[in-house]
Amino acid sequence: MAIINKEKNQTLLQQAIRALHERTFFAAYPENPTPEVYGETADLEGRTAYEAYLHKPFTELLQPNPSDWVGQEESPYLQQALGITYPFFEANTLIERAEKAFHTWRKVDPAERAVLLVEALEHVKKQFFQIAYATMHTTGQSFLMSFQASGPHAADRALEAIAAGLEEQTRFPAQTEWEKPMGKYSIKLQKSWIPVPKGISVVIGCSTFPTWNTVPGMFASLVTGNPVIIKPHPKAVLPIALIVAQVQKVLQEQNLDPTICQLAVDAQDNLITKELAEHPKVKLIDYTGSTTFGNYLEKLPGKMVFTEKAGVNSVILDSTTDLDKVLQNLAFSVSLYSGQMCTAPQNFFVPETGIKVNGEVIPYEVVTQKLSDAIEGLVNNPKAGPQILGAIQNVATEQRVKDSAQGHGKVLLSTCNIKNPAFTDARICSPVLYEVTSADKDIYNQELFGPIALIIKTKNTTESIALARELAETQGAISCAAYTTDPEIKEQIKDEMSLAGTPVSFNLTGNIYVNQNAGFSDFHVTGGNPAGNASFTNPEFVIKRFTWVGFREPAAV
Amino acid sequence: MAIINKEKNQTLLQQAIRALHERTFFAAYPENPTPEVYGETADLEGRTAYEAYLHKPFTELLQPNPSDWVGQEESPYLQQALGITYPFFEANTLIERAEKAFHTWRKVDPAERAVLLVEALEHVKKQFFQIAYATMHTTGQSFLMSFQASGPHAADRALEAIAAGLEEQTRFPAQTEWEKPMGKYSIKLQKSWIPVPKGISVVIGCSTFPTWNTVPGMFASLVTGNPVIIKPHPKAVLPIALIVAQVQKVLQEQNLDPTICQLAVDAQDNLITKELAEHPKVKLIDYTGSTTFGNYLEKLPGKMVFTEKAGVNSVILDSTTDLDKVLQNLAFSVSLYSGQMCTAPQNFFVPETGIKVNGEVIPYEVVTQKLSDAIEGLVNNPKAGPQILGAIQNVATEQRVKDSAQGHGKVLLSTCNIKNPAFTDARICSPVLYEVTSADKDIYNQELFGPIALIIKTKNTTESIALARELAETQGAISCAAYTTDPEIKEQIKDEMSLAGTPVSFNLTGNIYVNQNAGFSDFHVTGGNPAGNASFTNPEFVIKRFTWVGFREPAAV
Repeated sequence: MAIINKEKNQTLLQQAIRALHERTFFAAYPENPTPEVYGETADLEGRTAYEAYLHKPFTELLQPNPSDWVGQEESPYLQQALGITYPFFEANTLIERAEKAFHTWRKVDPAERAVLLVEALEHVKKQFFQIAYATMHTTGQSFLMSFQASGPHAADRALEAIAAGLEEQTRFPAQTEWEKPMGKYSIKLQKSWIPVPKGISVVIGCSTFPTWNTVPGMFASLVTGNPVIIKPHPKAVLPIALIVAQVQKVLQEQNLDPTICQLAVDAQDNLITKELAEHPKVKLIDYTGSTTFGNYLEKLPGKMVFTEKAGVNSVILDSTTDLDKVLQNLAFSVSLYSGQMCTAPQNFFVPETGIKVNGEVIPYEVVTQKLSDAIEGLVNNPKAGPQILGAIQNVATEQRVKDSAQGHGKVLLSTCNIKNPAFTDARICSPVLYEVTSADKDIYNQELFGPIALIIKTKNTTESIALARELAETQGAISCAAYTTDPEIKEQIKDEMSLAGTPVSFNLTGNIYVNQNAGFSDFHVTGGNPAGNASFTNPEFVIKRFTWVGFREPAAV
Repeated sequence: MAIINKEKNQTLLQQAIRALHERTFFAAYPENPTPEVYGETADLEGRTAYEAYLHKPFTELLQPNPSDWVGQEESPYLQQALGITYPFFEANTLIERAEKAFHTWRKVDPAERAVLLVEALEHVKKQFFQIAYATMHTTGQSFLMSFQASGPHAADRALEAIAAGLEEQTRFPAQTEWEKPMGKYSIKLQKSWIPVPKGISVVIGCSTFPTWNTVPGMFASLVTGNPVIIKPHPKAVLPIALIVAQVQKVLQEQNLDPTICQLAVDAQDNLITKELAEHPKVKLIDYTGSTTFGNYLEKLPGKMVFTEKAGVNSVILDSTTDLDKVLQNLAFSVSLYSGQMCTAPQNFFVPETGIKVNGEVIPYEVVTQKLSDAIEGLVNNPKAGPQILGAIQNVATEQRVKDSAQGHGKVLLSTCNIKNPAFTDARICSPVLYEVTSADKDIYNQELFGPIALIIKTKNTTESIALARELAETQGAISCAAYTTDPEIKEQIKDEMSLAGTPVSFNLTGNIYVNQNAGFSDFHVTGGNPAGNASFTNPEFVIKRFTWVGFREPAAV
């Protein structure tokens, strides 16, 4: 049995629990893929390891006897199939194995589960580079984003979930003596409590962030004693397959059933998600994806469902001290990974009366032109553009961007013909920018996934705020950026957006963007609006995964 | 403005928060209605005050301009109308007032809200006796149970909710500085977080425990900043009306809108519950009552619903050291308030092979006869019987008991002709006991509300446990009593019932009963089975009532 460095993992867990409550900067996994941190050979080795998986069956999972082998991934950079096949299992096989594994896993002490899962993350850390290449060639993210989002940032979010799960399960005593004074005598009871896991957990991944959006639910369910079935998007399997394989390896090394954590790869012509989700034994569902499917899942009876669905993110422009810096920041935000982030801004509310900059009014038309210019300049910068944009994950998004010129108002910026010299066949779209008025609600009250941004001309900032709030309340929102130098307007934005359950980033310029979301500090999708209730990681995210059950009996005399 | 003893209330809140985590005995409100604690004149004053409400409009609520006056309460002891009328408001009026009150209440700091709500409980404490008489003459509980359940026990459960709400809302920092090292420089953000209340809360009461089941949701919603509309059962209004009036009084004394907490009395020919529950502004619903209506509420979209519905509570009899003591304890449990408690046992699983008592086997027939005798002896004891039984709250329950002799197996004990000398017209039924076999699942797999108990003959304890678990999982269960001297069987019961989310009391004899449920120690209906998810009071009960929303901006240089 491989030895786990229990003490080291416990120390990390305690640091992580403290970080959750301090909410200052904390990261257990360094985000920069530099040789100083990860070693001189890490990049090359990771790339070689990634390439070795191509055009072969993936055999690292400890799940015997598949009924088929399936694989449909293709690289958005090369527009070629990866050719990897994964074991396929019928839903019933997965459920039966999970049910069996449940009864061993639930009996492992929560503290032991947490230590073991941290150990798995340490193994995952050694594979950050191959996970990065796998992410790049399934999602279209740039290499840097692939590394950060699927590697250290995801691992930090996983650690966050493990830490929160451990804390919540140990927040009430395992046992106590209860003595009630009754006058001349007292009643003494011995009491004990167990956090009882809910049952089988299914985690449904998305195609754009295959590990970042999957590991929180996966590790939250595992630390609370639930067996997990990971159902990745058929187009983005390898990044999470590598992580599942590491978890299975650690489980097996500890003489535990590796099918406590199973990968359930399906194919677009044989999807098993509904069959899994509807199975009565499945009690927990984590989901990232479309609103339609998310709403279907949320309505399934007898399930606890955690979702991250579509949202319409707003930018409220009122006043600033440096308009150029603001617009550069926003140009970056809409361009980053071509707007394929759940936190990417979409709707830019600009008052027809213009923006106040140090007392001077910059007219509406100047602002919109400058924003358009800033985006155009950024994406056409050969040193920055291709890296920021990455590639478009799928053909449907590309088509949506191309078709969007019809019916979305006046075209301010159409998609440029950007090329990535390293990947000449890459599927690339830079942001398109349209201009509508506040009356065109049928255009802007929906998520336009991908690099599609709208400028919405409003009467004034009050209308901008009201619309941003209304959209968040009705369509959902995961982020909001606001620029104002007026303390009263700032308070008004805080107040209105708080009622819409939407976090607000004020006056960001420089190298920090509204899209970015820090583990151990920024709560993510906390359930205040229709965008979902995933809640990385507030207590709700973990305590809904188990039930407190108490036992009592007369205390021994 | 009346002065609140802030320091005293804060001290109590800190004690209560500590108690929640220690889970040893804690009670802020003494449960015995003795002159030593409550004063020599308290009982008489309370009774006089109660009688003064009869046959009049109830005018203590600070809710102006009712559209009607309604009242349908009647005493199960006297079988006469109380003649009290309460102001009636249309659902829309209640919602409009709550919506307006929301925007003042949500801006009050959580710590201030908690102090103010504790102050209200101190006012309520002064009315425990009149609340007791009001409870007695609406629910049919005995005076002692009326006092304890509606007074101190309810106040402790309310304090528990306030304390938990305060703790959860202050568990993350109000603000912090986040500094991310970026190599040569760092990014500094000022971050802050607000627990944002969800919105209007509707608390739907039941006819048997009009305050105990209402105040937890009411105070949990209030402490988290949500305005509350209390919709009592039309047959049990006065006890909770007295409490709402005290909350409104304290709110007004603090220059706050009393309609932050409204009473919404309706009438059985003009029920407004559905209109309230379905209103889009209503975000939180607490409910105690039938499974049918509870399931309807749980399916309403866009609401957070906390329920306590029907359950089928089991007793597993395997072995003991003193059978007579066991059966006396159980006889009391089924008789207490004529089985009209959500925690009352209903299904007694007895193996056909009998019960082991100190190595000797007591045959099945002897056990069942002894249980029947124990119940009969208890309820016919003129000193104890009428006090334990109380009265039957409503005619439908009485009819159900009378009709139950048909179709519920062999009659072991039919309802005796008990009289309460103090209330000769009281509606009284003592427990009826029927005998079925494990094959008669259609009989015992449902709640038979009221004093109806079934003995279910099983093959052995393994079958008893399996059936108790299955019933809890499919029909819900709120309590389970088990008697065994075998450590392995005890572990098996713990394990199986834990998977059914059901707390178990082992080997209770003497003056502690499976029905009893202690604030600050026993979790109540924690959501592990279909009986509901009210969760008095684990963190889930309060954190689902608000949303964490974060704000960030560049830190001032």
